[in-house]
Amino acid sequence: MTAAEKIAALRDLMKTEKIGAYYIPSADPHLSEYLPEDAKRRAWLSGFTGSMGELVVGLKKAGIWTDGRYFYQAELQLPGSGIDLQKLGVTGTPTITQWVASQLKSGEALGIDPTLMSISAAAKLETELKPHGIKVKSVAKNLIDRIWADQPEPSLAPLEVHPTRFAGETVASKLKRVRAAMAAVGAQAHVIGALDAIAWLLNIRSQDIKCTPVAVSYVVVTPKACTLYVDGRKVTGPVLKHLGKLATIMEYREVGNGLRDLARSKPRVWLDAGTTNRWIQNKLKGCELHLAPTPIMAMKAVKNAKQMDGFRAAHVRDGVAMVKFLKWLGEAVPKGGVTEMSSAARLREFRAEAKEFKDISFDTISGYAGNGSIIHYSVDEESDTKLKPRGLYLIDSGGQYPDGTTDITRTVALGKPAKLMKDCFTRVLTGTIDCTMTPFPAGTTGRRIEMFARRNLWLAGIDYAHGTGHGVGQYLGVHEGPHSLKDLDTPPVVEGNLFSIEPGCYENGKFGIRCENLAFVVKDEKFSNDERTWLRFDTITLCPFDRELIETKLMTTDQLAWLNAYHKQVFKELSPHLDKAHVSWLRKATRAL
Amino acid sequence: MTAAEKIAALRDLMKTEKIGAYYIPSADPHLSEYLPEDAKRRAWLSGFTGSMGELVVGLKKAGIWTDGRYFYQAELQLPGSGIDLQKLGVTGTPTITQWVASQLKSGEALGIDPTLMSISAAAKLETELKPHGIKVKSVAKNLIDRIWADQPEPSLAPLEVHPTRFAGETVASKLKRVRAAMAAVGAQAHVIGALDAIAWLLNIRSQDIKCTPVAVSYVVVTPKACTLYVDGRKVTGPVLKHLGKLATIMEYREVGNGLRDLARSKPRVWLDAGTTNRWIQNKLKGCELHLAPTPIMAMKAVKNAKQMDGFRAAHVRDGVAMVKFLKWLGEAVPKGGVTEMSSAARLREFRAEAKEFKDISFDTISGYAGNGSIIHYSVDEESDTKLKPRGLYLIDSGGQYPDGTTDITRTVALGKPAKLMKDCFTRVLTGTIDCTMTPFPAGTTGRRIEMFARRNLWLAGIDYAHGTGHGVGQYLGVHEGPHSLKDLDTPPVVEGNLFSIEPGCYENGKFGIRCENLAFVVKDEKFSNDERTWLRFDTITLCPFDRELIETKLMTTDQLAWLNAYHKQVFKELSPHLDKAHVSWLRKATRAL
Repeated sequence: MTAAEKIAALRDLMKTEKIGAYYIPSADPHLSEYLPEDAKRRAWLSGFTGSMGELVVGLKKAGIWTDGRYFYQAELQLPGSGIDLQKLGVTGTPTITQWVASQLKSGEALGIDPTLMSISAAAKLETELKPHGIKVKSVAKNLIDRIWADQPEPSLAPLEVHPTRFAGETVASKLKRVRAAMAAVGAQAHVIGALDAIAWLLNIRSQDIKCTPVAVSYVVVTPKACTLYVDGRKVTGPVLKHLGKLATIMEYREVGNGLRDLARSKPRVWLDAGTTNRWIQNKLKGCELHLAPTPIMAMKAVKNAKQMDGFRAAHVRDGVAMVKFLKWLGEAVPKGGVTEMSSAARLREFRAEAKEFKDISFDTISGYAGNGSIIHYSVDEESDTKLKPRGLYLIDSGGQYPDGTTDITRTVALGKPAKLMKDCFTRVLTGTIDCTMTPFPAGTTGRRIEMFARRNLWLAGIDYAHGTGHGVGQYLGVHEGPHSLKDLDTPPVVEGNLFSIEPGCYENGKFGIRCENLAFVVKDEKFSNDERTWLRFDTITLCPFDRELIETKLMTTDQLAWLNAYHKQVFKELSPHLDKAHVSWLRKATRAL
Repeated sequence: MTAAEKIAALRDLMKTEKIGAYYIPSADPHLSEYLPEDAKRRAWLSGFTGSMGELVVGLKKAGIWTDGRYFYQAELQLPGSGIDLQKLGVTGTPTITQWVASQLKSGEALGIDPTLMSISAAAKLETELKPHGIKVKSVAKNLIDRIWADQPEPSLAPLEVHPTRFAGETVASKLKRVRAAMAAVGAQAHVIGALDAIAWLLNIRSQDIKCTPVAVSYVVVTPKACTLYVDGRKVTGPVLKHLGKLATIMEYREVGNGLRDLARSKPRVWLDAGTTNRWIQNKLKGCELHLAPTPIMAMKAVKNAKQMDGFRAAHVRDGVAMVKFLKWLGEAVPKGGVTEMSSAARLREFRAEAKEFKDISFDTISGYAGNGSIIHYSVDEESDTKLKPRGLYLIDSGGQYPDGTTDITRTVALGKPAKLMKDCFTRVLTGTIDCTMTPFPAGTTGRRIEMFARRNLWLAGIDYAHGTGHGVGQYLGVHEGPHSLKDLDTPPVVEGNLFSIEPGCYENGKFGIRCENLAFVVKDEKFSNDERTWLRFDTITLCPFDRELIETKLMTTDQLAWLNAYHKQVFKELSPHLDKAHVSWLRKATRAL
């Protein structure tokens, strides 16, 4: 079936359901960023595989809303589908509501699947469409599922225990903290839908979503009980023993009944409107709702000392794999036969040499030359390009280890780089350096800190259409909140947060550059005093930046000193784990500039 | 009467009025930043003369809430008054509401003067005190006025016409734009209380508030009419001719009756909840209110080409005065006899040599040595300090000219500066330079742009407890919104905005450093393209920075190039207006580093 045929079939169902448009978000019932295979409805229907994109199909037209990271990719994948690309953040782009209002008449309805829309998103949609007389109608069985003949079955990956030696905190302690937060706002129950929050709270993991070791589940916490709703076939003996009396396990499909039972006593229930779906809310009719972000996210975002140790160990392993990869790449490309896909596969193999390696932490972005300018490029058989001994190659990848998750981007010159490439690379690298080396007073928000990463590019009239950094989970999601280094209203950066720092520069169709390290937020002991706490970044990613791309004339003495000290540290920490040939390569790659 | 005696008298009145606490804000009925003399109730009662400070007097305790700019000053002025200093922005400081809740019992009342509190502030107070069972009670006649025997009479300064050759836009055109904005939100009336908004809209000025050439007045705009409520004794022939049929003039004291008449037809009324007082709102009972910032502020914040020309001309005049002053200062201080007050007076005289000079634009901050570390230091007979030929001297001043308002800070070494002083000065100066020289994409907010001014200080663990910059009116308030370079939720910076850029560094009791220029936001022609507009700052302040305080080793090549080009421009633009001796001085002061 082509995208156009699928949309035609969908439109037939829409007419039966008496809806003028149908909303197909990139979502599962847990509002996950990355989706289980059976939830990839938008990608299946439209052919657009970017990780972000909201599709709305009307009876005549259809539109997909995505952001700057994916404009180029969407322009390649959408033709023929009959779906218009709607560029978020670009002047003149209608909002989804404006578009729906232009397609539907007053009295008509927009159909949604209530399990695939957060409480806040559903409420916003209703509020915005109301003035136009357009209703939001919950359609009971998902319309895509009715036409998706070969839709995958839900995952049955077993539950795993995330041991306290990595987590640094017991489930009992975490439940105690969550219950204290509930008591503080007078909540008698907290229904949790976010899978990474559940994994953190119960120190469990699973493999239901590729690259993100979570278990599809719900959790309900009350002052006395904790219920985990999960497919019984996933439950193993060690997990039963691990949870003991701390949590009761119920079947995933029973959550609706469980919530109806809960609602009978009309408790005050804490729901995170951003990560809990509308269907859950509907089941709690009659309860007083405390709508606020779950306290778990902010707790999860502060790493304890044990977790920091784990992350550092994981990054030594990951750095070793990166060094092996970079040495191999430099030798293999001139010989020919290396492609974006084979290169990414080789990097995975290097990572897998570590016995602790579990999985990659997201689909590797392996972009050669012009493909590197597609910010979140996802290489496939069709786009796969051969790496030649010239131009730039961008590789953004990460690993899942039981003690930590990694996320690293390096940009490599495969031949003698042009002046423009060196200039751009150096502006990006000094952005990473400036952002990393500038201490900041406690209370500073990420949208302010990330300016330091942009400045050297802005001086040349260059900006990047993405944030500077995101949080990273421990053997969990490679993106986690609530903190960020983005122009968003996120809470101040605090001690124990872990961030990616990843400015970039993209020359459409020519090359892409990104320099990404992960760094913990630690107390700056030198500057902190009784009156004020100062914080600073402490980099944990260990891998050299390509010396061939560095134009030292564009760097200040301080930036150069930072880089040389960083490279020295990389050599010191990685060389004990490398053989002679790799130590020799690393010595050259990290020598002072 | 001492502060303690005044407070005792106030407490007697509070008992009669049956209120447990009385709120004395720094406010007039127009929520002006700077107050007419008769409205300076808080300063009269407490003795604390900082421009920002909220006083609440309970039956036993009293507290004054002020921000980081004034901690030091308050600590000097409050002792003996019985008023506790409450430091805003410092952990552990109770909010006013928390403090009131700790002083009053449920059922008791906090008294306010409804003309002195904005709609939003009054609503916030009520909402926050409600859970404590504390009421907010409007007290009809201000309690301070009842005990303030020698309270000044309201100003009778005449109205002046602000000619179109400076304003660059007629009153008719401005009224048309405001009415279009009203129509867009379906407002049948717009009641305006902010004095600078009124002055801008009607192209009028007056001298009711020191340094801020506004007229105490209200304006009501409807689709067909515009009524100016102002004391009839202030109205002159030229103003009557200027307004013609565009506006009807009514007596200031009639505004209450006017609003009652307006309310009869139950129109939808636009009120700016931040700059309109609660008393106005009360007069409009029964009307549907559109509570939103007045559109005038954003219009006023965008300067047209004629206004820009005027500002530039005013800055040449102001720069000439500053050069005369700096030359005089360097020669006079070693001879002895110069004090903070006499120095400020001398600068005023130099400004007054220009025939266009109208007034200073705010009380000059003239701070020698330790006094310079008081961020908004206001020198008086008691604190007046002699300038010696050593240490640092900070002078923050401005002038009012009919074509522009100026605001400039320079920090001068009166002898050979210590290494710490040079280091700190250079970090502040490079903050001003970095903030000025970095272009930014349209849509960037001030809280992000100001990071460039802080970075060089943060690298040394130094921060300043104030914003980096504010808007400036044309022959109007030296502070204007809605734009700012502060960590506030203000709208994106747009072309035509005028900003101060003024980072600082304060070593308590030792010295203060601030480097302040004004700069327009202009389109960056080099970087703008069809897809994206880039903006940049264009500095209009013309005055050298003290070369003795610059440590070039701490500067990048780009920063030094900016400074040398700036000094070259200062010389070029000012020297034609100076005599030989001053040209010679300026040549030395601006020679390349």
